[in-house]
Amino acid sequence: MAKAIPSRSENYSEWYNELIKKADLAENSAVRGCMVIKPYGFSIWEKMQRALDDMFKETGHSNAYFPLFIPKSFLSKEASHVEGFAKECAVVTHYRLKNAEDGSGVIVDPEAKLEEELIVRPTSETVIWSTYRNWIQSYRDLPLLINQWANVVRWEMRTRIFLRTAEFLWQEGHTAHATADEAMDETRQMLDVYARFAEEWMAMPVIRGAKTPNERFAGAEDTLCIEAMMQDGKALQAGTSHFLGQNFAKAFEVQFLTKENKLDYVWGTSWGVSTRLMGALIMAHSDDDGLVLPPKLAPIQVVIVPIFKNEEQLAQLSAKVKPVMQELRKLGITVKFDDSDANKPGWKFAEYELRGVPVRLAMGMRDLENGTVEVARRDLKTKETVALDGIVGHIQNLLDDIQQTIYQKALQFRESNMFRVDSYDAFKEQIEKGGFILAHWDGTSETEEAIKEETKATIRCIPLDAPEEEGQCIYTGKPSSRRVVFARAY
Amino acid sequence: MAKAIPSRSENYSEWYNELIKKADLAENSAVRGCMVIKPYGFSIWEKMQRALDDMFKETGHSNAYFPLFIPKSFLSKEASHVEGFAKECAVVTHYRLKNAEDGSGVIVDPEAKLEEELIVRPTSETVIWSTYRNWIQSYRDLPLLINQWANVVRWEMRTRIFLRTAEFLWQEGHTAHATADEAMDETRQMLDVYARFAEEWMAMPVIRGAKTPNERFAGAEDTLCIEAMMQDGKALQAGTSHFLGQNFAKAFEVQFLTKENKLDYVWGTSWGVSTRLMGALIMAHSDDDGLVLPPKLAPIQVVIVPIFKNEEQLAQLSAKVKPVMQELRKLGITVKFDDSDANKPGWKFAEYELRGVPVRLAMGMRDLENGTVEVARRDLKTKETVALDGIVGHIQNLLDDIQQTIYQKALQFRESNMFRVDSYDAFKEQIEKGGFILAHWDGTSETEEAIKEETKATIRCIPLDAPEEEGQCIYTGKPSSRRVVFARAY
Repeated sequence: MAKAIPSRSENYSEWYNELIKKADLAENSAVRGCMVIKPYGFSIWEKMQRALDDMFKETGHSNAYFPLFIPKSFLSKEASHVEGFAKECAVVTHYRLKNAEDGSGVIVDPEAKLEEELIVRPTSETVIWSTYRNWIQSYRDLPLLINQWANVVRWEMRTRIFLRTAEFLWQEGHTAHATADEAMDETRQMLDVYARFAEEWMAMPVIRGAKTPNERFAGAEDTLCIEAMMQDGKALQAGTSHFLGQNFAKAFEVQFLTKENKLDYVWGTSWGVSTRLMGALIMAHSDDDGLVLPPKLAPIQVVIVPIFKNEEQLAQLSAKVKPVMQELRKLGITVKFDDSDANKPGWKFAEYELRGVPVRLAMGMRDLENGTVEVARRDLKTKETVALDGIVGHIQNLLDDIQQTIYQKALQFRESNMFRVDSYDAFKEQIEKGGFILAHWDGTSETEEAIKEETKATIRCIPLDAPEEEGQCIYTGKPSSRRVVFARAY
Repeated sequence: MAKAIPSRSENYSEWYNELIKKADLAENSAVRGCMVIKPYGFSIWEKMQRALDDMFKETGHSNAYFPLFIPKSFLSKEASHVEGFAKECAVVTHYRLKNAEDGSGVIVDPEAKLEEELIVRPTSETVIWSTYRNWIQSYRDLPLLINQWANVVRWEMRTRIFLRTAEFLWQEGHTAHATADEAMDETRQMLDVYARFAEEWMAMPVIRGAKTPNERFAGAEDTLCIEAMMQDGKALQAGTSHFLGQNFAKAFEVQFLTKENKLDYVWGTSWGVSTRLMGALIMAHSDDDGLVLPPKLAPIQVVIVPIFKNEEQLAQLSAKVKPVMQELRKLGITVKFDDSDANKPGWKFAEYELRGVPVRLAMGMRDLENGTVEVARRDLKTKETVALDGIVGHIQNLLDDIQQTIYQKALQFRESNMFRVDSYDAFKEQIEKGGFILAHWDGTSETEEAIKEETKATIRCIPLDAPEEEGQCIYTGKPSSRRVVFARAY
């Protein structure tokens, strides 16, 4: 088949790249590090957006929109923030082109130089907190619960579609609160929203945890995250929720009058997920035949392929199938009827496998006689012949079952690739084989850095539900009170 | 009242600015010419997006996403295109900041200069057609029907919230076809989609027409547009749909193999509407008390204000109102119950008027006894006392009626401000008074420019449904075969 992709065991990295290409999800653009998200890939992202957006609104957030550009001076107001982003930002310095005098084409017009350079937002804390300054005067203006869907730019040197691109799409929540407790509750609430989305929609189990100080967002006092395991045993950070303390409020002088009539700085949070989730979705479930999509995020949930030799047969099959499609659509199930005669059924089967359509129905003349249909599920690659009578309920149940099965499979994979390790030798051996390692750590950045340097493994998180357990750091032997998660990561 | 805004007759321009501010729609940001769209304003934009997006999908289009940045050389490939956009574009020249050696803060790192400057997209024809080159080989790949929701930047010198901003949000459709006819049909179809959206959702009547060559999109062979009349009699271009001919296909060498096995250039269209529609919506309907929103785009369609003196009364009123709210919500109607005791009913009434909530219910103890409720409609500012029994059906009808009434009012306003004028003197007199002028024009750019120079009026469009009519150009007396629409415009 023309569309074949390398197997995961053969070359995991090439499998990922080729799958994205062959399944028509996205491609690299002519602009270094920027991707084009193709219609099929974008329709998955749209489903993610819709589900997340609904969850944000249910938890009381509203959408708004803030400028793409950030004055250079804004970025500098929070010291660790500029430290974190200055090294990789796109800078606008001019606002006009003009024709070159030698006729060689258009050039930047040196007379159209900006007084202050503008940074294309890598994240919007600075521009948003400078705005909040005017929006917040009193405790009555709090909490302020806002989200933005936007594009952001970080000039990464090594890029990879969906996982690390110079421009990516994301949402960024930015909230302001009267107390530290409220802000911390919000930080935690949004982490839970992300975890629920990952597990219920993406069918991808995640570990909720806190980042070490080393791995925190630039400007945050605490960063919570969800971490997922990919099929090669590597970790992927799928979402982060930051407790900003009063850092940005102080940097932008956002003060409010408390109930007790005193001036205080506002407490902040920010939280985001991005098109990186597309990469996570692909790597969590897909196989050597192509995408495996959880039904809740599949652009096409059911494809129906009629098997016919002539127009008359097609007409008979269509007549039988149409009412089924109508019923499915009434239930909100997305169905495609592929009656094109440009390609043979076998080609279509492979194509829809590649694209991860969860359920495929095939119906030929024999089925017509028997009142049956062949039902194939993408995840397990099983087929069965089912009576047309009652097929709608059958499909409904099947879609639910596929959603659950994909999740359970990923969960089992993760469970069987989580290792408790108690010596550095065992750690070094295991990290080469992949998976997550639960190990004791002495809590210092030095140890974390040393382990990273020597093994390329990072502390993915300190799990929120990690039990207290006395132990000794695998690297220094110093005391530790709980295990943290180490892994190599995307 | 603190929230009062200037009247339209007093100062139309200030009325617009203050209304946007007081109704919490948007504000200017710290970045020159860029706006912040506030949650209430953004929720109207979201409703617009949803409705338009559904219409695009119904007509067979898919969403995708293309890069924010355009290499300078791309912009130059289509000669009139670069001519149109080079003078007002944001240029990225560097990709890193660094600490100044004198400790004065961060500066642009001169060593991080891009080899080729990147333009922040003012529109995406160039980057999209450079991509289409790889997507289109044969007639089987056509038509290609893609839309993108995105931010774009045009460095306008004089900006005005929603109407003309440096950064704005929009959608841009970019389609590719095998024949000129198909592309022209698409151009026309999307104009009709825009007109339908303007009339059915925004309740804003529009004139469909073609732009004169002078006013065409840079790179198009034909530009169709919808033009709406604002309450000051000025025109506002609310959407454009361009027939691009083979211009971009030639510039980016996008060729395809026809059914007859010959190589030919692809035919293109592009079409867009933007956050400018927010400005149009405001200026088409709102009055001196605030926004008037068509129910279909109102973030809150019904507000219920209980009138109470104590908690017990509020509890009684709530108990009565809750089932009504539930029923309304089941019907998809957005309801807000404002039981806060921070503000008095009168204050609330004014606030919801300002925000354009179409229907307001007020209920006090007297109503409770009588089984009634006071129903006020925002558009006509009428009030009536209505039996609670059957109130849900009443509100449903009322929302429909308001949608229709707002449209009819705008239509009547436009009809009574359209003038057929046959001499240049009458033209000059009328243009000072405002409104649209239907007049004969000799078809030359020179005449168009001269009239614009002398009167600030432009040819808004050549209406698609303009009847043939022999006449003489009001400026030159030369023969003309149909009237065109002149107006001053936003």
